Amino acid sequence: MQLTQGIHRAANISPDKAALVSLERTVSWAEFKDRIARLAGGFRELGVAPGERIAMLAGNSDRYVEYYFATLWAGAVMVPVNTRWTTQEIAACLNDAAVVLLLVDAEHCGWADELREQCPALRQILLAAADDDHGLVSTETLIRAAAPAPDAVRHNDDLAALFYTGGTTGRAKGVMLSHANLMANSLTAMANMNISGATIHLHVSPMFHVAGGARLFSVTVAGGTHAVIPTFEPSLFLGALERFRVTLTVVVPTMLNRLVNHPGLGDYDLSCLDMLSYGASPMPEALLERAMALFPDVRFLQSYGMTELSPVATVLEPRFHVFDGPDAGFVRSAGRPVYNADIVILDVDGNSLEDGEVGEICVRGPMVMRGYWQQPELTAQTLRGGWMHTGDAGYIGERGFLFLVDRIKDMIVTGGENVYSAEVENVLYQHPAIAECAVIGIPSADWGEAVHAVVTLRPGMTVSTQDLFSHCRSRIAGYKCPKSFDVRDIDLPKSGAGKILKVELRRPFWDGESRSIN
Amino acid sequence: MQLTQGIHRAANISPDKAALVSLERTVSWAEFKDRIARLAGGFRELGVAPGERIAMLAGNSDRYVEYYFATLWAGAVMVPVNTRWTTQEIAACLNDAAVVLLLVDAEHCGWADELREQCPALRQILLAAADDDHGLVSTETLIRAAAPAPDAVRHNDDLAALFYTGGTTGRAKGVMLSHANLMANSLTAMANMNISGATIHLHVSPMFHVAGGARLFSVTVAGGTHAVIPTFEPSLFLGALERFRVTLTVVVPTMLNRLVNHPGLGDYDLSCLDMLSYGASPMPEALLERAMALFPDVRFLQSYGMTELSPVATVLEPRFHVFDGPDAGFVRSAGRPVYNADIVILDVDGNSLEDGEVGEICVRGPMVMRGYWQQPELTAQTLRGGWMHTGDAGYIGERGFLFLVDRIKDMIVTGGENVYSAEVENVLYQHPAIAECAVIGIPSADWGEAVHAVVTLRPGMTVSTQDLFSHCRSRIAGYKCPKSFDVRDIDLPKSGAGKILKVELRRPFWDGESRSIN
Repeated sequence: MQLTQGIHRAANISPDKAALVSLERTVSWAEFKDRIARLAGGFRELGVAPGERIAMLAGNSDRYVEYYFATLWAGAVMVPVNTRWTTQEIAACLNDAAVVLLLVDAEHCGWADELREQCPALRQILLAAADDDHGLVSTETLIRAAAPAPDAVRHNDDLAALFYTGGTTGRAKGVMLSHANLMANSLTAMANMNISGATIHLHVSPMFHVAGGARLFSVTVAGGTHAVIPTFEPSLFLGALERFRVTLTVVVPTMLNRLVNHPGLGDYDLSCLDMLSYGASPMPEALLERAMALFPDVRFLQSYGMTELSPVATVLEPRFHVFDGPDAGFVRSAGRPVYNADIVILDVDGNSLEDGEVGEICVRGPMVMRGYWQQPELTAQTLRGGWMHTGDAGYIGERGFLFLVDRIKDMIVTGGENVYSAEVENVLYQHPAIAECAVIGIPSADWGEAVHAVVTLRPGMTVSTQDLFSHCRSRIAGYKCPKSFDVRDIDLPKSGAGKILKVELRRPFWDGESRSIN
Repeated sequence: MQLTQGIHRAANISPDKAALVSLERTVSWAEFKDRIARLAGGFRELGVAPGERIAMLAGNSDRYVEYYFATLWAGAVMVPVNTRWTTQEIAACLNDAAVVLLLVDAEHCGWADELREQCPALRQILLAAADDDHGLVSTETLIRAAAPAPDAVRHNDDLAALFYTGGTTGRAKGVMLSHANLMANSLTAMANMNISGATIHLHVSPMFHVAGGARLFSVTVAGGTHAVIPTFEPSLFLGALERFRVTLTVVVPTMLNRLVNHPGLGDYDLSCLDMLSYGASPMPEALLERAMALFPDVRFLQSYGMTELSPVATVLEPRFHVFDGPDAGFVRSAGRPVYNADIVILDVDGNSLEDGEVGEICVRGPMVMRGYWQQPELTAQTLRGGWMHTGDAGYIGERGFLFLVDRIKDMIVTGGENVYSAEVENVLYQHPAIAECAVIGIPSADWGEAVHAVVTLRPGMTVSTQDLFSHCRSRIAGYKCPKSFDVRDIDLPKSGAGKILKVELRRPFWDGESRSIN
């Protein structure tokens, strides 16, 4: 079971069908296979050995899809890098994974020298572009020059990717996903979304996240067509849906919000669109209802999961996207386990709880990660007892629906990105004026949650919120920085043990909000 | 990835839904899980260790479904035994697999003493029944008495089953299928046939074959409902389709032939039936056309495969079951590779052939068996170069469709059973009157192919066909015995090297037949 299989199959049965379409190019499955094999050949000629890591630091593009599969074809392990990170964060990730080859696009190649200097394992940087430039050899040059390599044909438990996700201590965690992990997700996605050779999927979520990346696998397994646009912008997105005759796409609530408010929405022929799937952050019910009214012929499907689950654990099927009748009442749930996932609610001692009782959501199945890269203790802790402990609190309601009620991990999901409060708090505490701080998520129409900081100052100190923001921004990615600050002159509420009561800080923001995740 | 996962999921999300329905009983998913766990507990109490083999010798029943999953829950390996075999053939299989526990139903328990005597590894025989009888403890007694065992939670490459298939030398081969193998087949079946929690599947193919057995897995993974009848008989089958509101079933052409000729066909309400899948032997086009006319609202799907492929390699989708328009012309093909299967046509030297060129059909993917039990040389030969060599000859036609043209292995498929000519010839040669013989498959409306023997006698000898049949029947299963004999007094046609030219013997029977497999 390996993720390149679908390429062989599609190139055999539909060599002339489009594998990739973008605004610039169409690549058939036969061409795609040939390009993958040549690029993989180039990687091998550069000395990349099976199991070594190749990183990508680039915006979405049709080439990014090829980088995924060429890396796996060469037997190497993909490390897609978050483009929103600072150079320090990127270097830390490349060093953690001991990346030997980096693919970087023109937009991000300004960091090449700095990364080369900071990352001793990094042997080569290639330009993700049509031609050599900026002193870098381009991947197209490699494709033109290299002999096609045979598929390395990796196996079930072989590592396919390290997807980095934020860590509570500031050290990002490399989530180890195997070929079998990502294939398990692909096959259940295919069953749930009717992904087939006829599917044309528009990729618009960042390919450096597994939420976007996983669809590259499921569509390839099915031998469908990948449509790619560089970024989400409503008219570009809607135009692509029409132009490429897209049947399926995945959006985060933030994108959906911009779509339903887009004045030109009615100008596009979206008759091919069969399904919109969404996830990654809480969906306001009013927004969902409005979107369903604006896309009456489109089926909606919600997914819940996380990187560690490759990433989907539950889905809310289209039939439960109703507001009347016996199937109503579940749109606030996260749905039910995907085929092949087994979900229980455990208490702090690891005992299974009854339906309706709130505890930690724990998942078992072939989609559970192999572990955190070179973090055996954290891995053992997270996977204790054979269950992936999600850090999310929830309960199983009637008919087996999962409801999320809180996050046990102190984490904020903003615009589809995970932000660990502790990491942001650590940075704030480095500011000389800060006495105490607490970072929480507050409701945001744009981002689902927004990062918000409540701080108290040392006696006699003053500070501007602009200064606090700049302090954070110079150290961590912009999406992690608080969007708002509440500078208080009274102590933060605390428990008897002296722990800051974040629940008290959150309450005024969330009371009256209709939501299942906070 | 393990085959018991779906039981946990279904018992969690739909505990009250029927897991099993039969003419006698309905078992909910909660009860099913409890019964499986208790039966597995009983197996463990009887000393069955993980990895040890448990065999079943029984007709189809709802209990048989439970035996599958209780064996896996206990961490053991299932060995379903062909009920048509002779005692010697069964004993050879049990000894080959070193089976420690045998489950036998009332119909087959007369062989218990003989098997116990012939099979030294066999520690216990249990009766597949409601009560102890015939001096045997029943599985229901075990379920009542045993404490539920925790699921052994086997992993990807752990062995799940040995399905025995005929061997050319008379030694049956134990095909080793892993949890990942059978799960791979389940997930592609789910995607191709829309198997979901709403599926009600009627099992009527023998559960001792993987063709019938594989559906037990896919329906369990999806958390659907298993409907079981003991045997195929048209009115029983049609009555079950109506009574259980069946949505999906799988038949062999022989069954379909009996259905379309059944006078009471129109008396049943089959409005729930969504799909009829078929396979295992060639489908006469006239029969298919007639069946499609009689079931106008039912979608037809053909599968091609073999035990070694868990078992499905290709499917002909419903949309290609047409006789006009651009999708016509493919009903004689075996369809296209399932998602995740990779098929090539190789010549005798292992070179890949072009489309249209006839060679051996070879398959790669997660459904390929782990090998033949304790036959490493045969395994290496069959899986050489990373490809499962099917022994079937075929070619890839336009649009990637696979056409079967011949069988490279000298094998006959009769009524869904594989018969190796060499095994039957070996038995015939043991008869004192036989000088030479050749066993071939000839067309049969009832069986797809029928076993036919062409023989010459030693000088001065005579023999009746009844005598030849009795000679065979006392040594091998009835389905393997020739249904007709052609006793010739001229030499059989031979090649220059002295090899009997079976192609010459077959020609008069097959000329003018419209078929893709012979």
